[in-house]
Amino acid sequence: MINKILVANRGDIAVRIIRTCKELGIKTVAIYSDADRDSFHRYIADESICIGPNNISKSYNNIENIIYLALKLSCDAIHPGFGFLSENPQLAEECEKNNIILIGPTKEQMLLMGDKSRARETMVNLGVPVVQGSESVLKTKEEALEVANKIGYPVMIKASNGGGGKGMRIINCKEELFSSFDIASSEALSAFSNSDLYMEKFIENPRHIEVQVFGDKHSNAIHLGDRDCSMQRRNQKVIEESLSPFLSDDQRKNIYKTALDIVKGIGYIGAGTIEFIVDKDKNFYFIEMNTRIQVEHTVTEMITGLDLIKLQILIANGDEIPFKQDDIVFRGHAIECRINAEDPSNDFTPCPGRIESINIPGGFGVRFDTFIYCGYTIPPIYDSMIGKLVCWAETREECISRMNRALDEFIVEGIKTNVDFQRELVTSEAFKNNTHHTKFIENVFINEASTM
Amino acid sequence: MINKILVANRGDIAVRIIRTCKELGIKTVAIYSDADRDSFHRYIADESICIGPNNISKSYNNIENIIYLALKLSCDAIHPGFGFLSENPQLAEECEKNNIILIGPTKEQMLLMGDKSRARETMVNLGVPVVQGSESVLKTKEEALEVANKIGYPVMIKASNGGGGKGMRIINCKEELFSSFDIASSEALSAFSNSDLYMEKFIENPRHIEVQVFGDKHSNAIHLGDRDCSMQRRNQKVIEESLSPFLSDDQRKNIYKTALDIVKGIGYIGAGTIEFIVDKDKNFYFIEMNTRIQVEHTVTEMITGLDLIKLQILIANGDEIPFKQDDIVFRGHAIECRINAEDPSNDFTPCPGRIESINIPGGFGVRFDTFIYCGYTIPPIYDSMIGKLVCWAETREECISRMNRALDEFIVEGIKTNVDFQRELVTSEAFKNNTHHTKFIENVFINEASTM
Repeated sequence: MINKILVANRGDIAVRIIRTCKELGIKTVAIYSDADRDSFHRYIADESICIGPNNISKSYNNIENIIYLALKLSCDAIHPGFGFLSENPQLAEECEKNNIILIGPTKEQMLLMGDKSRARETMVNLGVPVVQGSESVLKTKEEALEVANKIGYPVMIKASNGGGGKGMRIINCKEELFSSFDIASSEALSAFSNSDLYMEKFIENPRHIEVQVFGDKHSNAIHLGDRDCSMQRRNQKVIEESLSPFLSDDQRKNIYKTALDIVKGIGYIGAGTIEFIVDKDKNFYFIEMNTRIQVEHTVTEMITGLDLIKLQILIANGDEIPFKQDDIVFRGHAIECRINAEDPSNDFTPCPGRIESINIPGGFGVRFDTFIYCGYTIPPIYDSMIGKLVCWAETREECISRMNRALDEFIVEGIKTNVDFQRELVTSEAFKNNTHHTKFIENVFINEASTM
Repeated sequence: MINKILVANRGDIAVRIIRTCKELGIKTVAIYSDADRDSFHRYIADESICIGPNNISKSYNNIENIIYLALKLSCDAIHPGFGFLSENPQLAEECEKNNIILIGPTKEQMLLMGDKSRARETMVNLGVPVVQGSESVLKTKEEALEVANKIGYPVMIKASNGGGGKGMRIINCKEELFSSFDIASSEALSAFSNSDLYMEKFIENPRHIEVQVFGDKHSNAIHLGDRDCSMQRRNQKVIEESLSPFLSDDQRKNIYKTALDIVKGIGYIGAGTIEFIVDKDKNFYFIEMNTRIQVEHTVTEMITGLDLIKLQILIANGDEIPFKQDDIVFRGHAIECRINAEDPSNDFTPCPGRIESINIPGGFGVRFDTFIYCGYTIPPIYDSMIGKLVCWAETREECISRMNRALDEFIVEGIKTNVDFQRELVTSEAFKNNTHHTKFIENVFINEASTM
């Protein structure tokens, strides 16, 4: 059995991993950057070592130092958490070379899913629905028209090298196509020095629904239900819940089958998440597969009663998944609100600083995963997420009430947070009535708030 | 529906009740004594009113003031929590007179269960096993011999007016009886000015197992499983868990049937706990029924997923219990450690004072119900319990590991606590192997520790 794990991460996920290790009797080594000298994950690990200066590439992303330390401190395994090196095939390769277990999938699986066009191709071959679009760059307006006719309006044209909305147009009917093509093309040229465009089916106000999957080295594949992460701001998840209130039982069955087809199809090993966007008619399309544990794994833990980090460790150890699909019971409903040190009234600018006082909500069905504490100074150089407030209740309605109550108890002094913003979101009619979507915060919620 | 509840209590149970009220959309009034001006329950209630000075009879036990306030602030109902007025028939009477709903059983049920000899008689009539003993005072040594022969050795003789072990003797065989009787009798006379003795079957090193029951106004009766509270110190519960690891399925079925017979037999309304002692051969005997919510209701919540305070409120409101016995699922295992401000190295002397810093454990399956916070000064005049650390896991073994991990994260500065003592208990061989009993701490654990 794995004896000692180096936790190659910081923040709440480092704390999360160390907790499970302690419960399993596995020794832990925490690494920290200069900026994280006072971080909570250091104190609960058996050993902690400074991995380097604040610069991420010299600390948490420093594969050479991490491997060196793991070897020096006789760690059998490395858990990369999420972010940083968690989907880095080079770390997988170095671990293999040095006979260290990487708690994650194989290097090949990381490479496959990291390359979006190869991933898409694999999905198409497995019969998984993907958002339809042009296979490559559109050479002419006429070709664009042909593709649009094939996939059906509305469509979106995007600059191949683009980003930030430049060179992007939504086209609702063929009459709009030629003029929009010209505008997008010239926008793309001036913004990116490249006028290349491609086309995709436009899905208006979609939901984001993902399936938590696990595969082991004995060809077993299971899913642990779905998560609905449709409450986003600028493509960043803000609230996650499980199970999705958007899917019917039949649709759920369908999306689970698809997810398991993918796991089996690629012989996936470890924890993974298969992300889909879902349109109004509940058609779902593969977006990407994350080959690691995710921030929002907590909501899955709450409704399944299963420790997902433990499951990752067992699988990395070569064990079989210790239960069958039919043994898994989903009970109640869970919601996670990401708590960020940021100022919602100032365009969500990060607000690091010293926590002068804090009251963490508690009681039945309330969990707060964090690495902060009273007197801790949040360093300005990392992600602004300071914790994840997770509530569980028998029904979604009760869970929303519980989250509202818990957010109400949350008091932090010394820094600004999005706690009040989260309360407004959770108690919004759209969230309560389950009519929100991935563009709700930008296009509806913030506009409504600013015109009030 | 009940609109507004006056919470006639303090500490963790006041917080617990207010949380559920908020989740149900019920307004709350908190009361507090002068000493509790800074208590957390005040801050989360909709309104809070000073009920009187520190003297308990003038504050939390002041029925007149409490009724006055409830009426003045238009409260429909009073929740008495545990301790204080929670089993006080006079409060029930005053509530009835003033048309206020008391969240608890009827006055008659409180009176019945409050009178230990009437309660015992009722149990005998219902066919519930009670610890055998002399019906009344033993007039002579010969009568004592006759009773002992009937109930079987070992027996215990106790001073009728006694306490603190004076006038108490364990008798293992008839040869010991006469001399022990004389000694106990003269001890009783000198200690209590009364030589009266009575006799009970002596149960050596018993377990304490209780059943959580609920009855409603529509004659429905359910149980929510059992709790094992065998880890006690001087008859005070220290660790509680659910379900009991001591009972087999058949014994469990049996004890549940007995508990439901009692609820149905007396037409009980509300939350109640039926306490039994269980001997080595797993025979169980009724001790008493608590006609209120208990400190350790949390472990039942963790394994059933049900909010017991909510259930109390629904029943008080006249609703039917919203599920059937067969709908209740027990999942996993839960353990509660009572965290006290006390010094285990100094005979568990209470250690009130200012909390200079605190780190509350968190993560998956960990709950801490409390009313304290950083900067709060624990007043010296109340119970020393400052919180209840509750862990849930799939199995008892994992739950013990999680509790050990959680206790390890628990840091309080400024006061002494029993956190380390709890860690030793939870990880003791006796607790892990489930061989502990109600006398374990006094007779085994502390002796072993002191001889090491």
